[in-house]
Amino acid sequence: MSDVSQPERGERELIRRLQRLLALPTGAGAADVAVAGVPFGDDMAVLPTGSTPWLWTVDMLMDGVDFDSAVHNWSVIGRKAMAVNLSDCAAMAVVPVAALCAVSLSNRLSMSDALELIRGAHEFGLRHGCPIVGGDTNSWDHPTVVSISIAARPLPDRPPVRRDGARAGDTLWVTGPLGGSILGRHLTFEPRLELSWQISRQVQPHAMIDISDGLALDLSRVLEASRCGAVLWAEALEAVIHPDARRLSASDGCPARDHALYDGEDFELLVVVPAGVREVACRNLGLYPLGQITDEPGLCLADGEARAPIPVHGWEHFR
Amino acid sequence: MSDVSQPERGERELIRRLQRLLALPTGAGAADVAVAGVPFGDDMAVLPTGSTPWLWTVDMLMDGVDFDSAVHNWSVIGRKAMAVNLSDCAAMAVVPVAALCAVSLSNRLSMSDALELIRGAHEFGLRHGCPIVGGDTNSWDHPTVVSISIAARPLPDRPPVRRDGARAGDTLWVTGPLGGSILGRHLTFEPRLELSWQISRQVQPHAMIDISDGLALDLSRVLEASRCGAVLWAEALEAVIHPDARRLSASDGCPARDHALYDGEDFELLVVVPAGVREVACRNLGLYPLGQITDEPGLCLADGEARAPIPVHGWEHFR
Repeated sequence: MSDVSQPERGERELIRRLQRLLALPTGAGAADVAVAGVPFGDDMAVLPTGSTPWLWTVDMLMDGVDFDSAVHNWSVIGRKAMAVNLSDCAAMAVVPVAALCAVSLSNRLSMSDALELIRGAHEFGLRHGCPIVGGDTNSWDHPTVVSISIAARPLPDRPPVRRDGARAGDTLWVTGPLGGSILGRHLTFEPRLELSWQISRQVQPHAMIDISDGLALDLSRVLEASRCGAVLWAEALEAVIHPDARRLSASDGCPARDHALYDGEDFELLVVVPAGVREVACRNLGLYPLGQITDEPGLCLADGEARAPIPVHGWEHFR
Repeated sequence: MSDVSQPERGERELIRRLQRLLALPTGAGAADVAVAGVPFGDDMAVLPTGSTPWLWTVDMLMDGVDFDSAVHNWSVIGRKAMAVNLSDCAAMAVVPVAALCAVSLSNRLSMSDALELIRGAHEFGLRHGCPIVGGDTNSWDHPTVVSISIAARPLPDRPPVRRDGARAGDTLWVTGPLGGSILGRHLTFEPRLELSWQISRQVQPHAMIDISDGLALDLSRVLEASRCGAVLWAEALEAVIHPDARRLSASDGCPARDHALYDGEDFELLVVVPAGVREVACRNLGLYPLGQITDEPGLCLADGEARAPIPVHGWEHFR
């Protein structure tokens, strides 16, 4: 079944091809699914229903890739499986309502481990008003896979924030310091749900995304969707380097700034704020400045008068 | 993390425990999720929204368990991943609207195999008005896992058919012959969507389920949810043995009737018809009679005057 004549790989190329493959034929009965205005490839898909749409997302986590069951306990793993989905809701500033949970449990798991996994997900979901209401339980002889799907509603007073609305002159902000999440925060992070609602209401951002695959890669997704570029201020970037990034840098020799730019699973929000909004409004929300949206495509670093392109890479599946 | 003091295993025990674990605390903000009347554990979960609820289901398929990528082509595998979810919609006689698809692709897959998998799912979904509108793409060094989730609406004129409404005196019917699906039908079956809508409208069934884990096991789920029992007529059961079950019986020596009772993945519908409905209405829908619902709990086989209990087992994960 393999086509060796196709050398391209990588998740970005796969998603690009899927966007073409899954484009709905015009006149298809189900085309009303696509009319709610959120394009394929945003953090959540949209199901319009009369006046208020449902939003809908899914994330799949695998043992040995997204967590390590030899080290982490199953309740914490379940919490992460729920939290990454809640972070997708935060990325669009919407309100999670309920979750489905599908698992392929390793046959080596005990009943109590299996229950801990789902309990960890459910209890963390409940804290955010999002219980597990159904699912699918399977088992096999390979490592455990857990997939959670969340249905959410828009805020009553604000539409979902998309990733394709950034415009030249907008300012770039982030909800917290970045890099080195592998030292533990990738499991214990708090999805920025309530903060995302405040941001949506108080600064009405043009675009937003959660940083799951690294600042550079996730920012490039916003820029690609919005057909623009961005410049990051070197001093501002320096100020959002997480202490974990510095610790990691001390042990692996990779610059701390690169950890902040390229490490995945920070799950902070990258916020594109309209040019007219006063800086103090962003600072009052606890946001950190990062840079500015530009007309010229691409991503670059500004240090005084100097400009240098920032290479775009990060965590990418299917290489 | 293992608790060796807990000997119980098996998917049924796991689901029983999950039903207790996931019971919503009264007063929880999200408790309105549970009020639409469809209990946890039915074929789909319910998201009420004003007047018309959404229904929601998920199924996860694993290479080497639900399909074999060494033998089956990826497009057919994708079709099955969509079809098992559409069959859940048929089980409740509801109308699928859109799907999410999450995958953990084996790193040995080519780009074209990965696209074929998702194309197979999407095109089969589109045929039933249910395109893929989003998802999550991952890869790893283990066999491929694919999980599809479907959102559906009730028929405009009929509520979803649950599995807990069977009553003594109701008659039991099935939409097609059973057993031996492993010879190929488990991949190529047609989910009984349109037929389920006709059934819902014309005989207003008290309960319905799709046969995914075997007639005996899926029927026992209806009986457990409805707190009643059933008797199957030996002659009727004989008449719904699929030719594939007889072929399999000839090669493995296991009685063809046992294949009809215990083989999984027929994806026919088991229909519980109110006592008052005339037989001809069921026969006109192409249904095959199977037996009757009883007050006494348990499942038994009636052959003339003789009654024998039918052991309940079937495909069960997490043994």
